[in-house]
Amino acid sequence: MSNVLIGGIEGGATHSHAVIMNSAGSIMASASGLATNHHLVGMKECQKRIAELIERTKVAAEIPINTPLHGLGLSLSGCEQEETNQELALGLKERYPNLSQKYVVSSDTEGSIAATSNNGGITCIAGTGSNTLLINPDRSKVQCGGWGYLLADEGSAFKISHRAVKYCFDDLDNFEKAPFPIDRVWQLVKEHFKIKTQADILDSFYKNFDKAHIASVCKKLAELARGGDELALCIFSEAGTFLARNINAVIPKAAPELMNKEGGIHVLCVGSVWLSWDLLRSGFVSWIESNTKIEEMSLMRLKTEMGVGAALLASDRLNLPLDRDYSKNYTIFYPYKRGVSTVNNGSA
Amino acid sequence: MSNVLIGGIEGGATHSHAVIMNSAGSIMASASGLATNHHLVGMKECQKRIAELIERTKVAAEIPINTPLHGLGLSLSGCEQEETNQELALGLKERYPNLSQKYVVSSDTEGSIAATSNNGGITCIAGTGSNTLLINPDRSKVQCGGWGYLLADEGSAFKISHRAVKYCFDDLDNFEKAPFPIDRVWQLVKEHFKIKTQADILDSFYKNFDKAHIASVCKKLAELARGGDELALCIFSEAGTFLARNINAVIPKAAPELMNKEGGIHVLCVGSVWLSWDLLRSGFVSWIESNTKIEEMSLMRLKTEMGVGAALLASDRLNLPLDRDYSKNYTIFYPYKRGVSTVNNGSA
Repeated sequence: MSNVLIGGIEGGATHSHAVIMNSAGSIMASASGLATNHHLVGMKECQKRIAELIERTKVAAEIPINTPLHGLGLSLSGCEQEETNQELALGLKERYPNLSQKYVVSSDTEGSIAATSNNGGITCIAGTGSNTLLINPDRSKVQCGGWGYLLADEGSAFKISHRAVKYCFDDLDNFEKAPFPIDRVWQLVKEHFKIKTQADILDSFYKNFDKAHIASVCKKLAELARGGDELALCIFSEAGTFLARNINAVIPKAAPELMNKEGGIHVLCVGSVWLSWDLLRSGFVSWIESNTKIEEMSLMRLKTEMGVGAALLASDRLNLPLDRDYSKNYTIFYPYKRGVSTVNNGSA
Repeated sequence: MSNVLIGGIEGGATHSHAVIMNSAGSIMASASGLATNHHLVGMKECQKRIAELIERTKVAAEIPINTPLHGLGLSLSGCEQEETNQELALGLKERYPNLSQKYVVSSDTEGSIAATSNNGGITCIAGTGSNTLLINPDRSKVQCGGWGYLLADEGSAFKISHRAVKYCFDDLDNFEKAPFPIDRVWQLVKEHFKIKTQADILDSFYKNFDKAHIASVCKKLAELARGGDELALCIFSEAGTFLARNINAVIPKAAPELMNKEGGIHVLCVGSVWLSWDLLRSGFVSWIESNTKIEEMSLMRLKTEMGVGAALLASDRLNLPLDRDYSKNYTIFYPYKRGVSTVNNGSA
């Protein structure tokens, strides 16, 4: 097993990233590809995209395409159900027999946690969608959210973008006045969707619905907020509140060893929305202060490549050797301490 | 023009209804068919369904299929934009030249108002979706809602059903406790979608999304509410509040002659959700009492067949003779009077 090859894919609703690692823990090659959420793209298309992405990674790693990996970890958004996870792995084995000898399929959240520890933890994903997961040392799981844009996704880029549009629509309709003037946000929405009137947006939200395109309002809204627009600031502060509530929802079920770490509860924050921590912070911190008794919390982010967690997960579950130093995989970007954190600017 | 033939279709997101009338104002025949919202079913399919429905109505009226109507009024949900309305009519003329000589295309809301007056009015539609429209005597329009389930639809059967599922999910996730125990509502949701766990619902909300099927939770929820379930009662009361807010949103723009009728502002209430007025009333009335200065309001419902308004609209716009007595087309089911209405049970 000296030249063991372990692959990992972390996949979301917008794009996916793959690595191939060797038993020394080195990344031999990596590659990016399309969305691999089977709820959104369909099971067969998802399998096809996985195969194509791994084949490209093999080429980059100078491994013959027909040489199967020893194990492939798939940590994908949409993979929350054991039954469909097995369907996914079975289809890959049948349709792409030389892709990998074995598979470990899990949610994207599980893969992220696996990059920081094989003893469980809490992760809060806020990308296009959102999902918060606690994994205890005994591998029991508690989830909050992760039910997609119609039933959850609070604090996600989609919901932040959606809230921006909805504030404008409700204000323009005289249904509910927005808390601050909508002018600049509405201008941004009109430019983003290339529309002139409210009715013009229907095409983008229904006939040609594209979750990622709607969610990409969020990035522009962050710029508006940093420029001082009060409504944009308010929307991000609300999103911070939602993310705090997501995390707090799973904490009561966490095992004591996860709660009593140095720096308090460690929470792994994953996804593009966390890049706007400067805008989320006020809502996040004030909600925690007012609604919980949490004394200390360390917000961490990964500094390793996406997909490494999935590969580590495959290594652990399949008993394949893979050297690791977890402390190199993450950094703490915000150390929360009750009563003092509102003064601290964090480093994100 | 003694045997002038005027057709009318009122179409929604779930089903459509057609009539053919003669110049004496009699309904010669009527028929029901599939949804005709072109945003949901596509423009070509919408045209096909319209043609098929009118052909069946012609057969029922013993009119040869190849005899064009003199005019056809199409009052359809989804027809809020002039550009696509013209595209709809043009496609019908080209693809089905013997269907009708002329067309008048409008939103479903406009058709409903046309059944009660050719001088404008306010209508609040709450079916699968929701939409509120004021048409002034000068034909200027003010809309609140009507932007579909992702951007509006407050008070609709879809949103009532969605709220029921969301209360359960947020409670089960420990994200936000529902205001009342979720047990019976969650049981209903599980039975309706034939699921055992939260994750099982994803198929019905994403891969096999069916707006009408989700919205049909609403009817069962009404039964639960009438049986005394506090959460179901709360959801309907909230919906009543939303409908009141929808109506109140357009009132500031109403011409004085619409405001000062006998019985105050007349509001035409259309759609299946209004069948649960007994459950909506508390939220509706208390919101109006607390948030507006409205003294009197008459909630009306149509007692004529669906499609008649669309035919009357076609008659007026195309100058085709069609006898009518508006007062026979509606009844007032709830006369609101400030301060006394909370005692009145209404008759719905």
